[in-house]
Amino acid sequence: MSKILRIIPIGGLGEIGKNMMVYEYGDNLLVVDAGLMFPENDMLGIDYIIPDFQYVLQNRDKVRGVIVTHGHEDHTGAINHLMEQVSAPIYATPLTRGLLEVKLSRGGLLNQVKINTVQAGDTIQVGPFQVELFHVCHSIPDGVGLGITTPAGLVVHTGDYKFDHTPVDNWPTDYAALARFAEKGVLALLADSTNADKPGWTPSERVIDPAFDEVFRSAPGRIIIASFASLISRMQQVANAAERHQRKMAFVGTSMVENARMARKLGYLDMPDELLVPIEQALKMPARQVVLMTTGTQGEPTSIMGRLSTGTNRQFDLIEGDTVVLSSHPIPGNEESVSRTINRLFRRGANVIYQAIAPVHVSGHASQEEMKLLLHLVKPKHFIPIHGELRHLKQHANLARTVGLDAEQIAVIENGQVIEFSNGEMSLGERLPGGYVFVDGSGVGEVGPTIMREREILARDGFVLVSIPLDRTSCRLKGTPEIITRGFVQPRDAEDLMEGARRVVSETVDCTANGRMQADLEQTLKSYFYSRTKRRPMVFVTVSQS
Amino acid sequence: MSKILRIIPIGGLGEIGKNMMVYEYGDNLLVVDAGLMFPENDMLGIDYIIPDFQYVLQNRDKVRGVIVTHGHEDHTGAINHLMEQVSAPIYATPLTRGLLEVKLSRGGLLNQVKINTVQAGDTIQVGPFQVELFHVCHSIPDGVGLGITTPAGLVVHTGDYKFDHTPVDNWPTDYAALARFAEKGVLALLADSTNADKPGWTPSERVIDPAFDEVFRSAPGRIIIASFASLISRMQQVANAAERHQRKMAFVGTSMVENARMARKLGYLDMPDELLVPIEQALKMPARQVVLMTTGTQGEPTSIMGRLSTGTNRQFDLIEGDTVVLSSHPIPGNEESVSRTINRLFRRGANVIYQAIAPVHVSGHASQEEMKLLLHLVKPKHFIPIHGELRHLKQHANLARTVGLDAEQIAVIENGQVIEFSNGEMSLGERLPGGYVFVDGSGVGEVGPTIMREREILARDGFVLVSIPLDRTSCRLKGTPEIITRGFVQPRDAEDLMEGARRVVSETVDCTANGRMQADLEQTLKSYFYSRTKRRPMVFVTVSQS
Repeated sequence: MSKILRIIPIGGLGEIGKNMMVYEYGDNLLVVDAGLMFPENDMLGIDYIIPDFQYVLQNRDKVRGVIVTHGHEDHTGAINHLMEQVSAPIYATPLTRGLLEVKLSRGGLLNQVKINTVQAGDTIQVGPFQVELFHVCHSIPDGVGLGITTPAGLVVHTGDYKFDHTPVDNWPTDYAALARFAEKGVLALLADSTNADKPGWTPSERVIDPAFDEVFRSAPGRIIIASFASLISRMQQVANAAERHQRKMAFVGTSMVENARMARKLGYLDMPDELLVPIEQALKMPARQVVLMTTGTQGEPTSIMGRLSTGTNRQFDLIEGDTVVLSSHPIPGNEESVSRTINRLFRRGANVIYQAIAPVHVSGHASQEEMKLLLHLVKPKHFIPIHGELRHLKQHANLARTVGLDAEQIAVIENGQVIEFSNGEMSLGERLPGGYVFVDGSGVGEVGPTIMREREILARDGFVLVSIPLDRTSCRLKGTPEIITRGFVQPRDAEDLMEGARRVVSETVDCTANGRMQADLEQTLKSYFYSRTKRRPMVFVTVSQS
Repeated sequence: MSKILRIIPIGGLGEIGKNMMVYEYGDNLLVVDAGLMFPENDMLGIDYIIPDFQYVLQNRDKVRGVIVTHGHEDHTGAINHLMEQVSAPIYATPLTRGLLEVKLSRGGLLNQVKINTVQAGDTIQVGPFQVELFHVCHSIPDGVGLGITTPAGLVVHTGDYKFDHTPVDNWPTDYAALARFAEKGVLALLADSTNADKPGWTPSERVIDPAFDEVFRSAPGRIIIASFASLISRMQQVANAAERHQRKMAFVGTSMVENARMARKLGYLDMPDELLVPIEQALKMPARQVVLMTTGTQGEPTSIMGRLSTGTNRQFDLIEGDTVVLSSHPIPGNEESVSRTINRLFRRGANVIYQAIAPVHVSGHASQEEMKLLLHLVKPKHFIPIHGELRHLKQHANLARTVGLDAEQIAVIENGQVIEFSNGEMSLGERLPGGYVFVDGSGVGEVGPTIMREREILARDGFVLVSIPLDRTSCRLKGTPEIITRGFVQPRDAEDLMEGARRVVSETVDCTANGRMQADLEQTLKSYFYSRTKRRPMVFVTVSQS
C-alpha cells in the first residue's frame, strides 16, 4: 500500500462523519469516535442505528487506537459494538472515560478493553499518528479536538465545538493550539457543520443562568428540570441556581443519578453534599424548597417526563403549581412528540417553560461567525466539512468560500467516500460500500431494508389472512374460509366486505391451476380489497386440504 | 332552550378551533370554516383527518349558514364531508369561493350547494347572527375575520391573521373595523394563537421580494420555486420577480395550474399573458430564461419536488445549474421529510435555498406584538385564544394577562368544550363527546383507534402466522407447520428460529385443551419468539384438521 493519507467518514445515514471517522496511513488505522444515530420517524420499530464500520472490521488488525472526543451518545453509543471486535486501546479524557466505562461494563467488556486516560494538551503517539488533543467547548465538559500530525501533513479535526467565551466550567476552547497549528501549516481542516445554517454566534451557556434565576424566582411550587443525562454542565447550572435560591436538588432516574455521581467523583460537577437530597426525601419537602432534575426531553413515552405527562409515573405525579423546564432542544424528528408532551404537561396543570419561551437551552455547536473564525485561525490548505447533513456541509462550504477558500480546496463528501492526500494534494478515493445497521431489540443487523419495507406496508394498510379448507378431489370448499385481518378495517364495519371476499374465494378456487392457485387467489383478493376500500393490505392465503 | 350564546371549538386533535367553530344561539347554529388536519407522523397510513362534527350533524336542521374565512386546506378541506349532510348556504369571498368550488365539484356537490359571494365590509344576516366581515392579511388573499353581533353581545373572530403593513396585494388588515367593534363594546374576542410563542412582529410578505431578487440575480440556470398551491400572493411575487429579471414563468402540476388560472380570472393574480408559458415550452427554453413554480414543499414523495429529489419525475429532471427555492415552512411533523428532500436535491446537483438560508418565506400569522395590538384595539370583555395547540393558547393567555386582562376574563379551552355567555358573563358549558375522524383511502371514519394500534404493533415488530395441519383423532401433526412472517426477521437469517418454532408447536399441541388450543399455542409461540429475539410480533395460529 502506497504512502497516502486516507480520511474516511463512516456511516450511511444522515450526518456525515458524525459517528465515526477513520484516518488511515499505510497499514495503520486511527478510529475517531464510535457513536450511534437515532432512527428517523419512519424507521419502524428501530431502537437505534450504528454506522456500518465493516471497513474497520476488515482491517481490524491495523487499528492502532480509538480516540473518543467527548461523552455524547452520538460519539460513544456504538463503542460496545466496535470493541467487541477490535482490540486496540481507547484514548479518552477523564469524564469521557467515565461515561465510556458505564457502557463497557454494561456490555461486559470493561475488563477486556484497555483505556488510556488523556488530558487536553497531551500529545500521544498512535501508530504513525502523533495526536495533540486540544480543549474545545461543547455542551458537555472535557471535550477535545485533535491535531493529527501524519507523515502526509497536519490534519485538524475539531469534533463538536463552539467558541464559548464564558463557559460554565470557565474553560474556553484552546485558541492558542489552533493558532499554533496554523503556524505549522495545516494540510486539512475537518470541522463541525451542525449549525452551518445558523447566522451569528451561538450564545454562551451562561445566558441560561438568568433564565434559570427568573424561573426559580417566580415558580410557586416545585421545579422539575428535564435535560440530557450527559449534560453535566446543565446539572452544574441547576445546582448553582438551587443554591442561589435556597432549594434542595434531587436527581431522578438511573442515568441521571449515575452520571451525576460519576461527574462529582471526577470533579466535573461541583456541588456541596448538603445541596443534594434523595428523591424520596425531596418528595416529602415543601414544594417551594425543591428542584428535581430528570431526563425525557424528547417526548419518549417511557421516560420520566413522558410518564409524568400521561399521569403514569410510579414514584410521583405532577401537582398543582409545578413548573416544568425543558432545558433542551428537540432532536430532529422528535419535534412532534416533544410538542405533544408539552401540551399534555400543560393539560395536567403544570406550567411548562421551553426554549421558545425563555432561553433555558443553547446549542453546543458553533454558528456561522464561529465557523469563519475557525477557518481564519487554522488557515487550512484544504477544508472538509463534517458533522452535519449534506445541506449543512454545502452551507459550510459556502461559508468557507466567503472567507477566501477556493472551490478546489474544499471537499463536500458523503459517508464512505475516501479522501486521499498525497504530496500535499487532495483527491477523491474510492467509495466504500456500506450503509447503516439497524438495531432492534436484542439482535444487531438482522433488520434490513426488506423488513423495513414490509413493516411500512403493514403500517399503512395492515394484512388479511384467508385460510381455506379445501377438498382437493372435488375442488370444493369443505367449510367457510376463515379470515383474519389486522390494521386493515374494523371487523364489525366490514362484515359485508368479508362476505364478499368469501364469495370471491369460492368463485376463484381452481385446483387445476397447478401450484399457482394460492398466488392467483391472493392476487384476486388484493384486487377485490383495493376496489372496495382503495387500500392495499398484504394478503395471504393458506390452503388446508385433505 | 334558553337564550344563551354558546361557542364551541370543534375537533379533537392538535389545534383548537382551527378547523371549525360553531356559534349557537337558541335554535340556530352558525358554522365557521370546515377544514382538515394533517396526520401526525405516527398515524400510520392516514391521508388526512377531519374534525368530528357530530354535534353539527345532530343539529343539522338548525344550521343557518357556513362562513369560510379563507381558502386554506385547514379551513376548507372538510367542506365536502360537511356539505354532504348539511343543506345551509355557504358564505365566502370571491377567491375563497373559487377554491371551494374546485373542491365541491370534485365531490360532485357543486350543483346542490348554495354559495353566496360576500365581500370584506359586507354585513350579512345569518339567522339571529348579524355578521360583519372585515379584511385580514394572511398568506392567502381575500381572507376575512368576523364581527358577529348576537342577541347576547358582539363577538369578534379573527380567523388566521397578521398585521402586515405592506402586504403583496396592498390591502392591510382593517384596523378601523376592529376599533369600531371596540367602541360598540366587545363581549368576547376569539383570536389566532399560532405564533403565540414567537416574540416581536411577523415580517411583512414584502421582505421576500429582495430575497427573490438576490436568487434571480445570481442563479446560473433554471429557478424552480416550490410553495403551496393556495399561496396566491407568493405566485404574484414570483411573477413580479420574473418580470423584473426577464424570465418566463411556468406553473407545474394540476393544482398550481388550476389555482393560478382561477386567481387570474378573478383578478387576484396580476400577470401579463406574455409572462406565462406552458411547462412544455419552458423546458425547451434556455435555462437562464425560465422560472418554474410547483408544489411539494413538505417532502411528499409523490409530489413533483419529491420526485425531482429522487430522479423519478416524468416530465423533466433536475439539471446542473438548477436553483431550487423552498418558499415555505415545514408543517409541524414534516421537518424530517423536508430535510431529507433538501439533502437529496443537493445530492442531485441543485443549489437549494430554504428559509434557514434566506428569507424566502414568512409566516402568515401574527406574532406576540401583533397579538397585543389586537387586544388593545378590540378591548374585549372576554378573551378566548383559538387556533393553536394547548401550549400556544396558554402562551396567548399569558400575553393577554400582560396587557391587562384578568384571569377570569380569559378561557383556555380544548376542542368540544362549550363556552356559554349569558347576561354578559362567561361560563363553561358541557364537554361534548367526540374526537377526530381518520380518512384513509376511500373510506371515511372506518379507521378507529383499534386499527391504529394494530398498525403500530405491525409496524414495530411484524407478524408470524403458523398454519398447522392436524389430525384431530390422533392429535398429531400431519405434516410440517407452514410459517409465514413479514416485518419480523429475514427468513434466511431465521431458519434456526423457525425450526425452533416448529418444535415448540409439536411439543405444545394439545387436543384436549378444548377450544383453547389455538390461543395456548399463540401464547407459547409469543413467549418463544420474545425470548429468542426480544421482539413482540403478532402471532396467529390456524389449525387445519381432518
